[in-house]
Amino acid sequence: MPTTHHFTPTHYHNTLGSHEPALRIAPGDTVVTTTVDSRGQDAAGQKLTPGPNPQTGPFYIEGAEPGDRLVVHLDRLTPNRSTGWGGRMLAQNVVEPAYVPQLPLDLEKNRATWKVDVQAGLASLAEPEGRLGHFPLPIRPMLGCFGVAPAGGEAISAMTSGPHGGNMDYNGFIAGVTVYFPVFVPGALFSLGDGHALQGDGEMVGTGIEISFEVQFTVNLVKGKHDRWPRAENADCILTVGNARPLDQAVQHATTEMLRWLQTDYGLTAREANLLMGYCVQYELGNMYDPAYTMICKLPKRALASL
Amino acid sequence: MPTTHHFTPTHYHNTLGSHEPALRIAPGDTVVTTTVDSRGQDAAGQKLTPGPNPQTGPFYIEGAEPGDRLVVHLDRLTPNRSTGWGGRMLAQNVVEPAYVPQLPLDLEKNRATWKVDVQAGLASLAEPEGRLGHFPLPIRPMLGCFGVAPAGGEAISAMTSGPHGGNMDYNGFIAGVTVYFPVFVPGALFSLGDGHALQGDGEMVGTGIEISFEVQFTVNLVKGKHDRWPRAENADCILTVGNARPLDQAVQHATTEMLRWLQTDYGLTAREANLLMGYCVQYELGNMYDPAYTMICKLPKRALASL
Amino acid sequence: MPTTHHFTPTHYHNTLGSHEPALRIAPGDTVVTTTVDSRGQDAAGQKLTPGPNPQTGPFYIEGAEPGDRLVVHLDRLTPNRSTGWGGRMLAQNVVEPAYVPQLPLDLEKNRATWKVDVQAGLASLAEPEGRLGHFPLPIRPMLGCFGVAPAGGEAISAMTSGPHGGNMDYNGFIAGVTVYFPVFVPGALFSLGDGHALQGDGEMVGTGIEISFEVQFTVNLVKGKHDRWPRAENADCILTVGNARPLDQAVQHATTEMLRWLQTDYGLTAREANLLMGYCVQYELGNMYDPAYTMICKLPKRALASL
Amino acid sequence: MPTTHHFTPTHYHNTLGSHEPALRIAPGDTVVTTTVDSRGQDAAGQKLTPGPNPQTGPFYIEGAEPGDRLVVHLDRLTPNRSTGWGGRMLAQNVVEPAYVPQLPLDLEKNRATWKVDVQAGLASLAEPEGRLGHFPLPIRPMLGCFGVAPAGGEAISAMTSGPHGGNMDYNGFIAGVTVYFPVFVPGALFSLGDGHALQGDGEMVGTGIEISFEVQFTVNLVKGKHDRWPRAENADCILTVGNARPLDQAVQHATTEMLRWLQTDYGLTAREANLLMGYCVQYELGNMYDPAYTMICKLPKRALASL
Repeated sequence: MPTTHHFTPTHYHNTLGSHEPALRIAPGDTVVTTTVDSRGQDAAGQKLTPGPNPQTGPFYIEGAEPGDRLVVHLDRLTPNRSTGWGGRMLAQNVVEPAYVPQLPLDLEKNRATWKVDVQAGLASLAEPEGRLGHFPLPIRPMLGCFGVAPAGGEAISAMTSGPHGGNMDYNGFIAGVTVYFPVFVPGALFSLGDGHALQGDGEMVGTGIEISFEVQFTVNLVKGKHDRWPRAENADCILTVGNARPLDQAVQHATTEMLRWLQTDYGLTAREANLLMGYCVQYELGNMYDPAYTMICKLPKRALASL
Repeated sequence: MPTTHHFTPTHYHNTLGSHEPALRIAPGDTVVTTTVDSRGQDAAGQKLTPGPNPQTGPFYIEGAEPGDRLVVHLDRLTPNRSTGWGGRMLAQNVVEPAYVPQLPLDLEKNRATWKVDVQAGLASLAEPEGRLGHFPLPIRPMLGCFGVAPAGGEAISAMTSGPHGGNMDYNGFIAGVTVYFPVFVPGALFSLGDGHALQGDGEMVGTGIEISFEVQFTVNLVKGKHDRWPRAENADCILTVGNARPLDQAVQHATTEMLRWLQTDYGLTAREANLLMGYCVQYELGNMYDPAYTMICKLPKRALASL
Repeated sequence: MPTTHHFTPTHYHNTLGSHEPALRIAPGDTVVTTTVDSRGQDAAGQKLTPGPNPQTGPFYIEGAEPGDRLVVHLDRLTPNRSTGWGGRMLAQNVVEPAYVPQLPLDLEKNRATWKVDVQAGLASLAEPEGRLGHFPLPIRPMLGCFGVAPAGGEAISAMTSGPHGGNMDYNGFIAGVTVYFPVFVPGALFSLGDGHALQGDGEMVGTGIEISFEVQFTVNLVKGKHDRWPRAENADCILTVGNARPLDQAVQHATTEMLRWLQTDYGLTAREANLLMGYCVQYELGNMYDPAYTMICKLPKRALASL
Repeated sequence: MPTTHHFTPTHYHNTLGSHEPALRIAPGDTVVTTTVDSRGQDAAGQKLTPGPNPQTGPFYIEGAEPGDRLVVHLDRLTPNRSTGWGGRMLAQNVVEPAYVPQLPLDLEKNRATWKVDVQAGLASLAEPEGRLGHFPLPIRPMLGCFGVAPAGGEAISAMTSGPHGGNMDYNGFIAGVTVYFPVFVPGALFSLGDGHALQGDGEMVGTGIEISFEVQFTVNLVKGKHDRWPRAENADCILTVGNARPLDQAVQHATTEMLRWLQTDYGLTAREANLLMGYCVQYELGNMYDPAYTMICKLPKRALASL
């Protein structure tokens, strides 16, 4: 019978790798836990651990074997403090090279403080900024970095991403989404961190509104699926994730993974899958800041409705 | 006083360049005209002219000088026949290189025929395709290729794009949008073509539903703006267009142009523009098929409302 | 019987396109002519015409038809004045984006003057530069921009390059090299300009030592070859040229063109061509400054000797 | 007093990471050891360990601390068996996407066997291949994968590369070269493997001639240098290594690291370093096959002679 685990992390990892499990859970189980922000600060604003993107976990999922598909439903993502912070300057790699000296370079390490009102669903600048004033924005809490242990004995920095997930910084990873990860090691070793109260497409300032979270998620397992890249779905669409540089390669991974998905899980022929995608596919920019960029390939569920 | 010109094209160009004007019009004027499809077929399905993307025009806008901003409002874009056509196979450059042999390569030159019902707002396959059946999809007519004559005496193929616009293949260029082009030559020499009844993000099969159009547009002029890249706006957002390879560079152009726009036209400081974009920016993939790819950088107007 | 034409240009073009021929020549003919530097300055240092890269020509080669191969032997490339000039700052796009502000940005438009002694084969700074002093370097005169008219009615800026050649800025295009261009229009319409007394790999400061040239070249024609990209050979190797962004794509074009060459002209099977290239291929960076970058794929002739 | 260690590996690692040291050595010490080939086969052709690129080591260098520069002189690299193997088909990512189906795809996993005669300095195909016959080629033994433990607790696959070195697959890493690595962890944790009897530029078939080696190397230490990327020198040149995708980014890293080197170690001003590089720099393609590509930035020592 599914169990709900209330898990309080005692230490954190800055890589996704084959670390000692923090907790063993079974398919169907739910975990309620917390994440610190990308610099290791908790709900009280205390720095518990160094950055980048300290990971809560890893969670060992009983029965998970390489070649399986780990299912992670993001039940709830709630900022658990009232102050977040974030960048003020667009990253140098996202503007024309000759424009870099016109960026406000004095702000490169300068961080904006944001007041986050979870009840009202709003974030506002702690200090007003010129004509923007306090610049209130609706929050949309999302997980920046989460995934499983990579293959081949690697331990990969929580600053970057790959087939195992990691620091995808896609602002569509909000509560209610179900995410699928390929399993590369026994137990999958799922971990999570780097909550953002909101984030612009592409994480162009190198951050969202960085904040600690209370998180609830539920895991499941599908045996023998051999996915290559993370996948997800929400009420409206299914999506695949490509993590690579340049963006072109990220698109190639996400697009190819969607072709595979349509053929292996939806039973389409190559001919049908190509035609369907050609006229209905959508893309989103996850991030263009991390060492690996992230592109999302989406299909609206209504395009799949007739299948 | 503004004039409405009913213009029937007698010949077409396969490049955007400093061609003899087909019609001289004044700022404020409206043009009602037609475009052939990307292979040169008209409303009757007759091939009038060779492809690629034959352009109607160019239109000489009186008073337009290099450094000005040409304003083109897309008043109406209506498919004027009931049959379109389009690709069936995702392009080889959008999938993982090792996956290319698994594409349905026999379909590379094979074109689907689509029935387009403008009244009903639907396109459906003329021949059912396996489990997709007739695969009815809502149409969303858009212009694939339009722009002005480039600088420096260039004549650039209507297959590709650049600072002058051209074959951007962005499915957001629908009726109701106002597009801004930098003017590079006297009279701007605006031309247009390559209508799509609908198109997936990225034009991944190398086409939308290719069809001839009846088009109505209205031009205007803003003197001395010296934009670098196409810009546009609709009811919800302002957007900039970057046309380049790889996608990374397209993003750099679009992002930088948005930074410029916020500073020169909205009067933001660099500090304000960077902060605003960092948390509110959105991106869309125009195309990843043409020789130059297209990325769109958007800002929701609600984020600008307080300014 | 082959003719030697002594041709004095009277005007120049800043694009490679289907311009009125400046001279009609026959296969086997030799042309002795001059080129101005990339800013349009001649042997006397007089600015005759605006930049960029003014082209001498175009030369119409009798009998050249689309699908033929134009053969251009660079007989002689001689700087015809004693002063050249060039950049001082590495381009912003060739360094890490975050490093751009550490470039000596005040030098971006500042040009070094070089004394060029053709007899001695040396170039030296006119004004000593700190610890580099006059920095004498051996000259190696090369053509930066030359090629044929592109297909499809395009007129392409002499700042960039493509299948038609153009501004390849490859420092291996020196006297003694035979260059092959695909013919896209009747007469081929060959033109040339942008001489460099020497140039570093990649043209990382945006220039070589820019100087006017006396040039002698001899043309020939091979019918019906349907090459896709420029090719060349010298005493030691055969080479192919890919012009595109990013460098990855330039490599793809050059590599694929070499595979084609080995199969169509050297009669290798695909299996043999792949194996040969796998262990013997060499690459050089033409330029990483122009709108299209250039990569060179080379095979040493000794690896082909046994064939 | 420097010691020569004769080290026989008893196990191997497929990642570069903070593994238990296999041997502790002091600056000045020399190590004579062996490497297995990229699939784990030793001098007798026995498979001792799984691939990819099993690493001998790591060697803990006494006194090495983060921020130091590890100096590794490659004294001797000798194939220690008479048979190597390697790929037959160019990788799909190095040709034009539309050309992929024309590659000899049946050969993708097929490996050529090469007879390697170290005395004669020649490699030849074990089985003749059509018109290539036994295709004898001069060997040029090089190390494909070597480096130090990365920063941040990462363990990075020996299939790829980064600031720590790793699988750079640059055919200039031959005996006689001195390589410099940034130290990221105490003891540096140097390891090595993946010997090639010879390799084409770019490792376009995904391998060189893969073979086991006897290796001799000597280490040293320079304190407090804080290099960012691997560097090296030989009799003729100094060079820097950029490992990233796409090639453009690899060039950016290598070029920027050379700018840093000229300023911090050779005492040039930014102005001098930019000018020197602009006219003298050379580039080589390390590999375009591994997950991270490798570009080499070189300066001939004669260009530095006057300093």
